[in-house]
Amino acid sequence: MEKATEKINSIKVKINGEDYYIKGAVPEEYIERVASYVDEKMVDLSRSHQKLSPARIAVLAALNITDELFKLKQEYDEFLNMLESENPKG
Amino acid sequence: MEKATEKINSIKVKINGEDYYIKGAVPEEYIERVASYVDEKMVDLSRSHQKLSPARIAVLAALNITDELFKLKQEYDEFLNMLESENPKG
Repeated sequence: MEKATEKINSIKVKINGEDYYIKGAVPEEYIERVASYVDEKMVDLSRSHQKLSPARIAVLAALNITDELFKLKQEYDEFLNMLESENPKG
Repeated sequence: MEKATEKINSIKVKINGEDYYIKGAVPEEYIERVASYVDEKMVDLSRSHQKLSPARIAVLAALNITDELFKLKQEYDEFLNMLESENPKG
């Protein structure tokens, strides 16, 4: 839940040719950056998978982005473990 | 492009009630973990946005996951900058 005092921005973005109204307690520029990341993935996937429906293209985009998220999480965790083993506590 | 010597795994996963055949030069368990992350997001979003089409639910899931990716990137970058300022070179 958003706090009532937070400013909620609502903007229109275009993703894979469709309009979406996105709300969030974050700057408009951030919403645009997130939307254009998804748009770019979907447009690329639509070109390489021309027979797939927009729904399946969106799911493929979500899978690709999740893969990036998991890889970054793993890299971050490995880095933290490396620091920990270089500077053990106690 | 995958190297010809890499083993390509192909498995069937169910995401928001639809079957997908996912290929990748990664362990099957990893593909399943990525797929179930997207499935969980989509099922949750379908419950809270019952009038939206599966295509729009998938785009919302992709937007949410991109937001998580960007936030993690920012946290990681800030952590690296903090280490850098604690241990300046030269």
